Amino acid sequence: MSVASSLHHFLRPRLFHSQNLFAAFPHSPQLFILPCRCRIPRPGASASSTTATTTSNEAQLPVCDDDEATMAASERSPIDVNPPRGTRDFPPEDMRLRNWLFDNFREISRVLSFEEVDFPVLESEALFIRKAGEEITQQLYNFEDKGGRRVVLRPEITPSLARLVIKQGKSVSLPLKWFTIGQCWRYERMTRGRRREHYQWNMDIIGISKIRAEAELIHAIVLLFERLGIKSSDVGIKVSSRKVLERVLQLHSMPEKLFAEVCVIVDKLGKVTREEIEKDLISAGVSTQAVQGIVEVLSLKSLSKIEEFLGSEEEAVADLKKLFSLAEHYGYSQWINFDASVVRGLAYYNGIVFEAFDREGKLRAICGGGRYDRLLSTFGYDDIPACGFGFGDAVILELLKEKDLLPDVLRHVDDIVLPLDEELAGPASKIASSLRKEGRSVDIIEDKRLKWVFKHAEKINAKRLILVGNTEWQRGMVIVKNLASREELQVKIDEVASLS
Amino acid sequence: MSVASSLHHFLRPRLFHSQNLFAAFPHSPQLFILPCRCRIPRPGASASSTTATTTSNEAQLPVCDDDEATMAASERSPIDVNPPRGTRDFPPEDMRLRNWLFDNFREISRVLSFEEVDFPVLESEALFIRKAGEEITQQLYNFEDKGGRRVVLRPEITPSLARLVIKQGKSVSLPLKWFTIGQCWRYERMTRGRRREHYQWNMDIIGISKIRAEAELIHAIVLLFERLGIKSSDVGIKVSSRKVLERVLQLHSMPEKLFAEVCVIVDKLGKVTREEIEKDLISAGVSTQAVQGIVEVLSLKSLSKIEEFLGSEEEAVADLKKLFSLAEHYGYSQWINFDASVVRGLAYYNGIVFEAFDREGKLRAICGGGRYDRLLSTFGYDDIPACGFGFGDAVILELLKEKDLLPDVLRHVDDIVLPLDEELAGPASKIASSLRKEGRSVDIIEDKRLKWVFKHAEKINAKRLILVGNTEWQRGMVIVKNLASREELQVKIDEVASLS
Repeated sequence: MSVASSLHHFLRPRLFHSQNLFAAFPHSPQLFILPCRCRIPRPGASASSTTATTTSNEAQLPVCDDDEATMAASERSPIDVNPPRGTRDFPPEDMRLRNWLFDNFREISRVLSFEEVDFPVLESEALFIRKAGEEITQQLYNFEDKGGRRVVLRPEITPSLARLVIKQGKSVSLPLKWFTIGQCWRYERMTRGRRREHYQWNMDIIGISKIRAEAELIHAIVLLFERLGIKSSDVGIKVSSRKVLERVLQLHSMPEKLFAEVCVIVDKLGKVTREEIEKDLISAGVSTQAVQGIVEVLSLKSLSKIEEFLGSEEEAVADLKKLFSLAEHYGYSQWINFDASVVRGLAYYNGIVFEAFDREGKLRAICGGGRYDRLLSTFGYDDIPACGFGFGDAVILELLKEKDLLPDVLRHVDDIVLPLDEELAGPASKIASSLRKEGRSVDIIEDKRLKWVFKHAEKINAKRLILVGNTEWQRGMVIVKNLASREELQVKIDEVASLS
Repeated sequence: MSVASSLHHFLRPRLFHSQNLFAAFPHSPQLFILPCRCRIPRPGASASSTTATTTSNEAQLPVCDDDEATMAASERSPIDVNPPRGTRDFPPEDMRLRNWLFDNFREISRVLSFEEVDFPVLESEALFIRKAGEEITQQLYNFEDKGGRRVVLRPEITPSLARLVIKQGKSVSLPLKWFTIGQCWRYERMTRGRRREHYQWNMDIIGISKIRAEAELIHAIVLLFERLGIKSSDVGIKVSSRKVLERVLQLHSMPEKLFAEVCVIVDKLGKVTREEIEKDLISAGVSTQAVQGIVEVLSLKSLSKIEEFLGSEEEAVADLKKLFSLAEHYGYSQWINFDASVVRGLAYYNGIVFEAFDREGKLRAICGGGRYDRLLSTFGYDDIPACGFGFGDAVILELLKEKDLLPDVLRHVDDIVLPLDEELAGPASKIASSLRKEGRSVDIIEDKRLKWVFKHAEKINAKRLILVGNTEWQRGMVIVKNLASREELQVKIDEVASLS
């Protein structure tokens, strides 16, 4: 996950946009807020009550007595039915889409042989106190708990992961390859309809200093894109190394402690004017010459230019060459390109950094990550080489929608069991129970007209309708209607489960 | 979710116990906290560096240069590596157990044809403000956000669900059958090692006033127990109806508004003395005669006694009889029994209530739920009949451990790719990439001794070891070792993926 949160920074102006991207899914119904005291009608509730005692496709079903349960609203003034500002509900259709996306995250993580981990969404504020001026630490959703402790709804997951790595200590053998999918939060006062939470897929490799780690992480990202139907003509992954900037600072004899802050400032390039960046660098204590060196190196458009500028012996150059060479072997060269302007917004990166973007340049970064070998020492422990990325749930869904790649995540049910008479509630239970024991998903429908049932069956993609009628039941049978073929059979009760 | 939170109440003294039940899993390594500035050793890092250029099972693998990345810890004093008090981390082995449990929750929900939903873990406090004296509302993890809004880390999920039902309004057709698995929080000042968060599986049926809803929910719980290997001799589900208490209050001409508070007080029976209960009831405004009526009815041990006491025309009696009759048809009669003392601790229940418990009586309630037809009006909207349960992640794992039913949730990987030479990093990438494209899970191992690799392979249950050696690679081959059969083959590079 690691660099996950740099998303917050990089995508600053729009990442937590209020548009619910899950709700952008074409099958999402339009939600609306009911006026207070409105009544939610139950289909069929106003139909006349008839009692069907024989089985027929046209049978009018008995209407239930649900009406009586509708009570007058209390005197309390209606509550706001929206979730807290900047947060989302996930009704079933949005949840299906979210599960689909997360299942893809999990499948790629499995294929890369990563293990899933998780951490509390509530963390100690101390884990996120950094002084490099990152937006992520300026927008903490923090507060004091009743015991006087400073806590925070985590803005990113990397620090928790680092905490657990330290805690696990000698009980684990390095390298660790961990992934997690978790919710991250931010708070900003200016509410321009931005979201305050998003979900993030994180993959991290702890204990590998070689470029293999970066190459594996980028492989995961590429495999995900391919799995989702995204092409390398749609999306690219920009790669650079912070060692380039580090070297420039060294060449100008700037103190090492400026490094993180310089990176955070430089990351704003493209979002604020170059003049502002230069001003901020000077304020931070960077010399005018060093500022010019930084500006110059960031404008270089190829690795060979960087090599010319810094010399081929330079670590930054060697790292990047190694990565591009490995990419060739993995077979994902067409997805990546060098871009000196990529810095990422998190303070703790110290080596290769990368971010995926749509080639049309319409959207914010899709994901981003990098190497963070020096994070553990900021917590007071010895460092371990580490590398990771964060991949949010927002931009990828925007992109998939744009490219018409969102799937039809429909509801599926095997059987609908329909007692045709109130007296048959028991037998219907028996049938449903035997089908469920076979692992079939079974909906029992009562007190609805057949028309409603057929519409419902279509909506939930039911395979079969099991009609439990009096006459048949007496003979130990039910009617099984295959909803695809429209075929209808009388089947012995014991054989319903085995017939599919 | 619904009645989920009544768990908090019922299980008051121990529900959020600090014992990490996932960590109770036998495969969990013992975690410990490192002394500050300790160094985490990387296996193999101290081994001598030899370069194997030919392939052999006995080859000594090159040792990587990971060591150089270990840096001295900073001057910062070490942070606390524990998660916030009362919360849990989920390292891989605990996460596998959690996923296993949640997958079972999901599978049962699927079989019952429920749809998954989700809500923000952060909610408006207004959703949980109730005056019946429930423990759950007295232990809210609440605070004011920076915008001055009263918010809360939700203690239960039912109110969020009700909120979404109202919000969805006319866009949805009733009944709704929803499930969710989410984290719930509580805050209590007295920290006796109790947990402040747990996960809860919730299933709710909205829009069915018939006892079918309760019968379906109990069916789900029973199916889960059966799936987990739990027997009806291990676990029972106690069932009662709050309508019994409601009727007693009516018989003594007590005002209806006392109902919720009386239920919350009475729920404490068995945890505090009968004298205290009686005192609290009197304080609440219940007459001495009504108190005696309540005490009398709660001690009745069978449904027929209740019938005698209230008369067979009584709704409470009819409801319970209907439920027991349906249970017979579903085939789970042996799991349920009537128990007048079951009330549950949430204010909003108004009909049938139930809870599952281990028959030995060693543990707290495993899950609990009931009917809450009048919740929506407390939010200022018209009511809709509803019913649900909450099922925590804690007690069930305790029980499974007790009964020796915890599974071996092991890590599984298909292939380990092992370049036998640093120069073969590229070819190894190529092989790994082709295997992953086939959906195989592939770990690439570098810079480790063969002994470590075999140990690792055993630990992660790898099926195959793919050795990439120079000699073979020149001939377009790799060595594939089947780790179960110990069979070793030279295989053409293109055929590695198809051979399994």
